[in-house]
Amino acid sequence: MYKCNSRRLQALIEQFSQFGATDNSGVTRLSLSNEDVLARNYFCECCEALGMDIQVDDMGNIYATLPGKKNVPPIVMGSHLDSVEKGGRFDGVLGVLTAIEAIRTIKENDIDVEIPLMIVNFTNEEGARFDPAMMSSGVITAKFDKDKMLQSTDKNGISFREALQASGYKGKKENRLAEALAYLELHIEQGPVLEAKRCDIGVVEGVLGMVCYEMTITGQSNHAGTTPMSMRKDSMIVASTIITELHEQLGKIDEQLVFTFGRMNVSPNIHTVIPNKVTFTIDSRHQKPEVMQQVEDILNALPETAGGCHIQPVKLWGRDTVYFNSAICNEVERACQSFGYSSHRMFSGAGHDAQYMASMVPSAMIFVPSIQGKSHCEEEETAFGDCAKGADILLETVLTLQTKFSMGETYTLH
Amino acid sequence: MYKCNSRRLQALIEQFSQFGATDNSGVTRLSLSNEDVLARNYFCECCEALGMDIQVDDMGNIYATLPGKKNVPPIVMGSHLDSVEKGGRFDGVLGVLTAIEAIRTIKENDIDVEIPLMIVNFTNEEGARFDPAMMSSGVITAKFDKDKMLQSTDKNGISFREALQASGYKGKKENRLAEALAYLELHIEQGPVLEAKRCDIGVVEGVLGMVCYEMTITGQSNHAGTTPMSMRKDSMIVASTIITELHEQLGKIDEQLVFTFGRMNVSPNIHTVIPNKVTFTIDSRHQKPEVMQQVEDILNALPETAGGCHIQPVKLWGRDTVYFNSAICNEVERACQSFGYSSHRMFSGAGHDAQYMASMVPSAMIFVPSIQGKSHCEEEETAFGDCAKGADILLETVLTLQTKFSMGETYTLH
Repeated sequence: MYKCNSRRLQALIEQFSQFGATDNSGVTRLSLSNEDVLARNYFCECCEALGMDIQVDDMGNIYATLPGKKNVPPIVMGSHLDSVEKGGRFDGVLGVLTAIEAIRTIKENDIDVEIPLMIVNFTNEEGARFDPAMMSSGVITAKFDKDKMLQSTDKNGISFREALQASGYKGKKENRLAEALAYLELHIEQGPVLEAKRCDIGVVEGVLGMVCYEMTITGQSNHAGTTPMSMRKDSMIVASTIITELHEQLGKIDEQLVFTFGRMNVSPNIHTVIPNKVTFTIDSRHQKPEVMQQVEDILNALPETAGGCHIQPVKLWGRDTVYFNSAICNEVERACQSFGYSSHRMFSGAGHDAQYMASMVPSAMIFVPSIQGKSHCEEEETAFGDCAKGADILLETVLTLQTKFSMGETYTLH
Repeated sequence: MYKCNSRRLQALIEQFSQFGATDNSGVTRLSLSNEDVLARNYFCECCEALGMDIQVDDMGNIYATLPGKKNVPPIVMGSHLDSVEKGGRFDGVLGVLTAIEAIRTIKENDIDVEIPLMIVNFTNEEGARFDPAMMSSGVITAKFDKDKMLQSTDKNGISFREALQASGYKGKKENRLAEALAYLELHIEQGPVLEAKRCDIGVVEGVLGMVCYEMTITGQSNHAGTTPMSMRKDSMIVASTIITELHEQLGKIDEQLVFTFGRMNVSPNIHTVIPNKVTFTIDSRHQKPEVMQQVEDILNALPETAGGCHIQPVKLWGRDTVYFNSAICNEVERACQSFGYSSHRMFSGAGHDAQYMASMVPSAMIFVPSIQGKSHCEEEETAFGDCAKGADILLETVLTLQTKFSMGETYTLH
């Protein structure tokens, strides 16, 4: 068992948090921005210093490979270096930096490398600059059409294609990762569960299925002072009643189900005018398809009209639950036991590159605790000690997998 | 009894609707804009042609007076020529144009004018360009401080002072209306009641008291996918529950009570984030102060916290019910009976210049039906026949009042 160097990892996190540092200890490192390019450059520098070979593909994904004795597909670790606007210092980047620390520990301890070990940085995971999120892991796993992705533009009208070209990180299609023995992504939890359970490590068994609906309630605008209550078609009242009722109905389905009415727009949104239109979203997530079906059934069973208003549910999108490789999850759990770190098996409610990689490579994720569950904000925080524990587990799992793969073992996708 | 000329009135309405005409049969005639100045000029022209004397005060209010045989304060008719952006062809202007038609009918029929008859156009009633509404009737009745009003700016940063100066309608303070025997304002209902009751005329007994509150619900933002329901502080759920409960509670108080949740803002308003702050307004109106007090008691009795969120009600403003002069209302009603027009006694839910004038002059209002209750929109409509009926009642009431005042009768404010 090899322990990573906690201080060295902390220094590396602090170094990377300078690329796009904000005034309040956060980072703004939008994909392919100057800040992202600085982080990419330094990532390549660190990897080259470890004797790793750098390749870049046509989506700007960077692959750093430490050769192994065997000429076989690699074991891959990684995540993404980009952040949202005014994001934190851990989301994404920690998966890359713990991987660097893992390789550093391997080199420092002269551990035999049988299987090639790769670190990947996926381009534009956040989708904060270019829609959609997880764009480039999505392209190499055939989830997205590359040409469409190249046309995605940021708020200044700059296309992904232009930004990629300008970044100097436009590589070749033949460099895309096509085969790997395993993919391991360490990430902050972005939720409060590990902290609440006082757990060191989350063993992530998959990514929750989700649906997102938009509900449009159409009534009639009239003067707030001159229209008797009985003659109103008030879309705000109807919207509030629906949300209140859905909250009760959906709340009864399953303790693990989460649902959120995150966005609401009211028209004309004037205090003296009865709203004629309210739209709001319902984002709901659960592991089991039958539970998600129940949610959709409830949404679609809403009456077409109520309180004189028209009710229109539209499904914006959905995804099925992605299951990670259970054998790798078991190895992660066993590593925790070896180190005496407490662990908790869980699903990710947020999306990650691993959810696309899982369709191509046996994959799993390792979560470390988020303080107060905060993420995508400057207050995002994970104790450096917890980051180091995550690095220990990442390394230990990779070494175990290396041993198994060297002995000819192979894993299926699930 | 004298009937007004329906066709002549229609032609006048159509002429005025050219000043600021929009593509969809509405008008945009913001106070002191070029369009408003054109309407003012034509108003003065029409009045001068009738032998009326024009005076303008320091707020740009225009007073056109037809001299009477007796040297006493006038009977005043009027309203306002300004409109909201993309407003209708009737709101405000109809009160001025029916007054012109009344004077035209008087002249045409050589009716003796014992008491001076005045038509007033109040500046910036809508408050659509310069906040607040009913600015200039408010200034001459000491509701607003003139200096503050002059500093009110439009969205382009132009002050009321500058706009007034540029309009050429800045008159003298000594021209302000200081004394009058009565004030009569004809206006469209802006609500659906008269149409629903198939009534020709609304006899308006006053303007409803109102309160406006803003409710702020503060919770905590977290990731929609990673935060278990039990660990959330979801301000949207709490806001919806409060609106649903208030709707039920307030709905039980009194059939005549109206209340509206017109404006809602959600933060951060992203479908994947639990809202940490929701603010919404509650506008509520009723004639009786004890009913308004019940509403305020309910709002202030909301718990300070619910669902982990903080609930903060803030009273933005309120006004007491304004009662018009009952003797004038009786004369309006009697005029309706003489003409065989159906009438309905009612309160105005919307604010009007008459509500300020009522503190200085015995006042009342005459409503004509709004088709589908629409106002402040291009679809605003009142049948020309109904406009003419309104003019008949306005004239008849003025003539009755003239007779009474000539005989030395006087009215108190209520």
